[in-house]
Order: sequence, then structure tokens, then C-alpha cells
Amino acid sequence: MKKINLGLLGFGTVGTGVVKIIKENRGIIASRLGAELNLKTIADIDIRTNRGVRISKNVLVKDAHKVVDDPDIDIIIEMIGGKKAARDLILKAIKNGKHVVTANKALIAEQGQALFNAAAKKGVELAFEASVGGCMPIVKSIREALVGNHIQSMTGILNGTCNYILSKITDDGSTFKDALAEAQANGYAEADPTLDVEGIDAAHKLAILSTLAYGMKIDFNKIYVEGITHITPLDIAFAGEFGYRIKLLAISKDRGDAIELRVHPTMIPVDNLLSNVNGSLNALTVSSDRAGDILLYGHGAGMMPTASAAVSDIVDIARNILSGAKGRIPLLSYHKGMVRKVSIMSVNSIQTNYYFRFSALDRPGVLSKISGVLGKHGISIKSVHQKGRRIESSVPIVMLTHLARESDVKKALAKIHKLDVIKGKPTVIRIEGESEADF
Amino acid sequence: MKKINLGLLGFGTVGTGVVKIIKENRGIIASRLGAELNLKTIADIDIRTNRGVRISKNVLVKDAHKVVDDPDIDIIIEMIGGKKAARDLILKAIKNGKHVVTANKALIAEQGQALFNAAAKKGVELAFEASVGGCMPIVKSIREALVGNHIQSMTGILNGTCNYILSKITDDGSTFKDALAEAQANGYAEADPTLDVEGIDAAHKLAILSTLAYGMKIDFNKIYVEGITHITPLDIAFAGEFGYRIKLLAISKDRGDAIELRVHPTMIPVDNLLSNVNGSLNALTVSSDRAGDILLYGHGAGMMPTASAAVSDIVDIARNILSGAKGRIPLLSYHKGMVRKVSIMSVNSIQTNYYFRFSALDRPGVLSKISGVLGKHGISIKSVHQKGRRIESSVPIVMLTHLARESDVKKALAKIHKLDVIKGKPTVIRIEGESEADF
Repeated sequence: MKKINLGLLGFGTVGTGVVKIIKENRGIIASRLGAELNLKTIADIDIRTNRGVRISKNVLVKDAHKVVDDPDIDIIIEMIGGKKAARDLILKAIKNGKHVVTANKALIAEQGQALFNAAAKKGVELAFEASVGGCMPIVKSIREALVGNHIQSMTGILNGTCNYILSKITDDGSTFKDALAEAQANGYAEADPTLDVEGIDAAHKLAILSTLAYGMKIDFNKIYVEGITHITPLDIAFAGEFGYRIKLLAISKDRGDAIELRVHPTMIPVDNLLSNVNGSLNALTVSSDRAGDILLYGHGAGMMPTASAAVSDIVDIARNILSGAKGRIPLLSYHKGMVRKVSIMSVNSIQTNYYFRFSALDRPGVLSKISGVLGKHGISIKSVHQKGRRIESSVPIVMLTHLARESDVKKALAKIHKLDVIKGKPTVIRIEGESEADF
Repeated sequence: MKKINLGLLGFGTVGTGVVKIIKENRGIIASRLGAELNLKTIADIDIRTNRGVRISKNVLVKDAHKVVDDPDIDIIIEMIGGKKAARDLILKAIKNGKHVVTANKALIAEQGQALFNAAAKKGVELAFEASVGGCMPIVKSIREALVGNHIQSMTGILNGTCNYILSKITDDGSTFKDALAEAQANGYAEADPTLDVEGIDAAHKLAILSTLAYGMKIDFNKIYVEGITHITPLDIAFAGEFGYRIKLLAISKDRGDAIELRVHPTMIPVDNLLSNVNGSLNALTVSSDRAGDILLYGHGAGMMPTASAAVSDIVDIARNILSGAKGRIPLLSYHKGMVRKVSIMSVNSIQTNYYFRFSALDRPGVLSKISGVLGKHGISIKSVHQKGRRIESSVPIVMLTHLARESDVKKALAKIHKLDVIKGKPTVIRIEGESEADF
């Protein structure tokens, strides 16, 4: 039986998952691939810790360069994470004519273009299914299954940590702080949770998906990103009363001359399937002109789900090697010279429905002052709820709007904030899934 | 730009969808494929009807053999349906060295083995993503994305007609007959709905998926199939009271030494995502050892969703042609000689939870008679509901069981049916999603 030689960089959580799948599911993989995946070398600084999987001693090395320079190795699996060292090793592997599989979403989203250019020039694969949505075949679905479609929009729950925390607050009424502490205790959040709770991780994934879907260059810095740290049990309770749940959504919409790209906490109707994606699970809805909406749902992170995606990339590349296929699919879905120059829409230009919560003094005339300002800025109110729940010296006034423009909302809220009857900064949460154009 | 020449057999609903996508989305397909899909010939008995898409007159022919014999054509798209003519044309196309794309689930499920053997021998592709789950990348997910996993079970809503009818009965309290009439009026059911409402269409799809997932020969005739014609608003209402919905599920489970394959109306908890798949939509949950559960959801039928899947197969094959790949993926997921000889478990051997509804005379002692028989057959009752809703001269008694064996259930119900206090045949609906082992 033929052998495909693999070199793994990084024997951490996901790296260990890859080793386990390749070893423990060796038989079934061979029966589907018609060849053996041979893990020739694993590089890690720590070559002592027992990872719960048996490997020969001579497989483990400390120097990653030995792996990427080994002429016998066909595919490099980069699982060290971080940016600088990972990038240098991937570039060296590409230069040496090796195919690369990675789960490094930060690197791909922030510096991917240079890596893909290098890989395309050398004629090698750079595969990254494991960087988005764990075990879900999201990259494959966009690059292959929907190849005949114009993709119109994507809406996803792409960060398990945020979804776990928001589910906790929704179910138990915990505060953000308590829910985060519990997520950390249960291994669903890092000691430093910034990348997750500030929405940056979801934005990395959205950048990658949008490049694949719309044929644009990766432009991570232009994505509007807002995290979940300001979400309170009170807003979640109000959301529930109005038939919504709050999720951190990654949203992209093709508006023809520009693409909307944004990550923020969002209210969605409870009967939307995304509302029912709970705990650390992920899901993505892709809307396209011929297939309509499809939804993918599954574990978006974790040792085994992420490793499962990396193994599917490894087998895809091995199948190319064995069948003699070169450059079978453009790495970023579109052929050279066919990548669109399309701008990313400023968040100020987007239009959506909004939820506002004001802390107001309990006096007559407050409502007319607020609605007066909104009206002047062309913001039409759909409903007002004044719930008499006194919080300290003020009462919450909640408003849901019809479709409004973000720039108008910002201006109006700045003025309302200055009204003498308003205490504190107004809370704003965008609502999606209300109108046909939303999903 | 290179051209891939296509020949279409059958200019009906899905065939027209394929033509529309290839014509109307020509630009985006070319930018992803790096070549042009050229629809050279379309064969149909009816070459006059306007299908709402412009094609040159010389493209249309009446004789399908002219298409499969044309040496210029690379890929044949079979969209005529039916078994005899479609099979003969596919075999001829394969013999002529052409790749084939089909949506013909009945043909693949019932006679597929011969077709796949012929294609493998000739070294051509026979692609069938469009035969299962419309636009959802189910075949691709099993053959490629989950390639590193042992698939443990699959549970799907794979027939849109049944799901539409059951949703109607659930939402409106319609009878089966009225819901079917409405489905027919809205184009969700055929004039002769037998294949759909008797569960046969879902079983065709389950046969195809199980072959791909478990590496077994296609064996359609051994699948247990039960349709939805006997489902009443009363049982749906009881299901709702107990926190369940009724769906026609296609279920397969790998039990190690045998595979469970069954299609039947099933109660599932309302918080299961499959419970929230409504109307004509489809969904499939695949459970595997490393990826855990993934769910795919989308339009399982219709002109454009099905055509979208066929186009993804066409592009996949075109990518193989252009990149020089031969035999890249085994047609049925496993390499020759690696297909398992595994038996299909008789439905009598399955174990699941059950819902029973008896029509009983309203007399003391009835319950003890029923539960006595059940107890003798080792069937343990989880709860009993006697709702006092008198229907004619009898009252419904509803029981939910713990895990029980189908053969015991059949014996017990045959005895209960004969009790003088019981009127009519007991209603039995299986319950899934209750225990860990279920999904």
C-alpha cells in the first residue's frame, strides 16, 4: 500500500487529536484513501509529556525546521498557532514544495494573502478547513458544493466561547462575569478570553469565509467587530419577552457594490434555527441564489472536531497526490485574475432593525423627548415598552425600530444620551432575521 | 478558455434548472472553475415547450442516444428519471467513456451496484449528490469531510412531501387526507404520492447514504419502511402534550455486527433541532466518532436546489478532467476489496422507546389487563395517560415505554388487540432522541 508522509508541527491539543485520528482510525482511512497516512515526524518544544497516544520515540523532534526540510515529507500540518513562527515555517514548507494543512485562523485572516500567493506560485496546496467551524465542512461547502451559486449572505455563530456564555446568561440569568468564569472553569474559555469575547476570533473566521464566498481579498481590519462583554441579563430578558434570543453573529451580505462584514451581539427570532444553537456549538447559514438557505451545525472547536477537519484536508491533498491532480481547486475559490475588487461597507452605512434600552427618569414627557429625537433622524419606532421596573432611580424604556441606518442611529443616540432625563449610555443591540432581506 | 462539453438527458424540471444555472451563472462558475461549461446538446421527447431559458435550436434533439454517442461530450447529465431507459443510457454513456451526473435516487438505490461497477471498470465518474438532500452537500460530507471518522449513525428528514404534510397536521390540525390535498395543490406532492407518503423515497436516500457511510453494498430491499398515511391529528396532539413532534425519519445505526436501517414516523423531543425542521425542508444529522454530531439543513428538492447539487457534481468532474485526476475518490467512498460484508438488522431486533395508543372501553381493570400483557413481554412502562376524551364508545389510553425490543412489542400488541376491552388496532409510534444511544 502506498504511503503519504506527514510532518506535524505542534503536539498540543489539536495536534494530538490529529495524531489520535490518524493512528486509531488508520484502517478506515486507508480503506477510503487507498493508501496509508504515515506520520513520519512530530515537532514540539515539549517532547516529554505523555499525550495519551503511543508514538515511537524517533518520531518526536524539537526542531520544527527538521520537519519542513525533510525531503520525504509530502504534507506539513501546522498546529503550533501564533503568527510569527507559524508563518515562517509555513513559508519554508511551501518553498520546499510541501503541501500545508493549518487550523491557524488568525494567521490566515490577518496575513493569509502572502501565504496563498506563495503556495499558488509553487503549485502546492494550503488547506484550512480546520480554521473555521471545527468539524463542519464550511470551506468545502463554499468552494465546492455551492460552486454554481452567487452567495448572497452568510450568518453564523462561529465562536463557541461566546455562545456558551450567552446561553448561560439566557438560561440561568448569570452575569457576563459569572458566565465567563464558569466557561473558563469548564474549559470553554481561555485564561485570557479577549480574542473570543471581543468578537475577534469570529471576525477572523468571517474574513476567511467572505474571501471564499465573494472572491475578494482578505481584509480583516475593515470588519466591524463588537464583543459581548456589555450584554446584561436585563437585555437578554427583554429579548426573550419580545420573542428574540441574543447571539454573537458573524454577518456578511453581498450588497452588489460593497460587502457588509460585521460581528456583533444580535437579537434573532426564537424560531430561527440559529436561536436554537446552544452551548459551545456553532452554526452557519449560507444564502445563495440557487440553493436558497443551507445551514451547517456542529462542534466548532475542540480537540477532535478540529482534528477531524484537518484530517479531511490531509486526505483531500493525499487524494490529489495519488490521482495526479495539480491545482484542482483555486486555494481561495477563485482563479487568478478573477478576484473582485469590492469594497467593504462601513458599518455606518448598514441598515437593520434596532433594540434600544434607555435608563430614564420616571417623569412625564420622557417618551416624547426620546421619540422626537429619533423622528428627526428618520428612525421609525416599531414598538415601545416601558416596564415600570425601577432600577435605582430610573426606569428602563425599551424601543424596537423599523429598518434604520446605523449613522442615523449613532447621531440620534448621541443626542438622546445628552437629554437631562436620560441616565447613562443607551444600550443598542441590532436585530436580524426580521425582514426577507436579512438572511 | 478551456471548454468542458456537457450533454443533458431530460429537459424537465431539474434539467431546466441545470440549464438555467449553467447559462445564467456562467461567469461566476468560470471564475471558480477556470474553464467554461458548454452545454452542447439537450435530449428530450418534447423539444417545443418553452422552458423560460434561451437555447439555440440546434442544441435540442429528440434522440438521447445521439448525446451519449457524441465523442465531443465529456459529461452526461441524466435527468430523465425512471429506471429502464435511464439505466440503459447511463450504461451506454459509461461504455463510451463519459462521466455521468444523475439525480436518480430510485435507480441508484435499487440498481446502483451494477452502474458503479461499470463506471469503476471504465475509470469514469458516476456522481449523485443531487439524488439525496437536494442542495445539501450530504454525499460530499460523508465521502470527504468525515473521511477520518467512523460514522455511527445518521438520522434524517429526507422527504419534503412528508415533512410538509406532517407540519400541516401539526400546525393546523388537518387530517392526513386534507394535508395531502393541500400539498398537491401547492406542488409539494405528486398526483400519485405513493413513493413519498409510503416512505419509499426516503428509504432510497437512506440506502445510498448507508452505502457511503458504512462501506456496505446497497441493499434497498432490506430497509424497514413505514409511511405516514396512518398518522392522525390525535397522535400529533398527544405527541405535543408529551413534548414531542412527529417526523418521518430515516434512521441508520451502526451496531457493530449489523446495521439498523429504517424509515418510519417517529416522535422526537421538541428541543431536538430536527423537530424544528418544518414545511418542505430537509435535514440530516450525522454522528461520528471524532466529529461528534453535525447537522445539514436546506431544501431537499425542487428545481433549483437539486440543480445546484448537480452543478457541483459537474464542476467536481470538470476539475478532475482539467487537473488530470483519475479515480480521485472511490465512487461509493470505499476502495475495491474494502467493502464490508455487514448484515442489515431485522426490524424485530431493534430496541427503542415506544408510544402506544389503545382505544379501550371505559371500564375498571382495563389498565391492569394491558399492563399485565406488556409486563409479561418484558416491556416496561414509563408513563400512562388516560385522558378521558371519549371517542365514540371508547377512551384513548396512551403509554410511553422504556427501551423495548420490537419483537416483544409486536407479540404484546397482538395479544392486547385481542382483549375484549380493546377496540381497533393499537397505534404504535417509535420514539427517538430520548437516550444517549439514540442519536
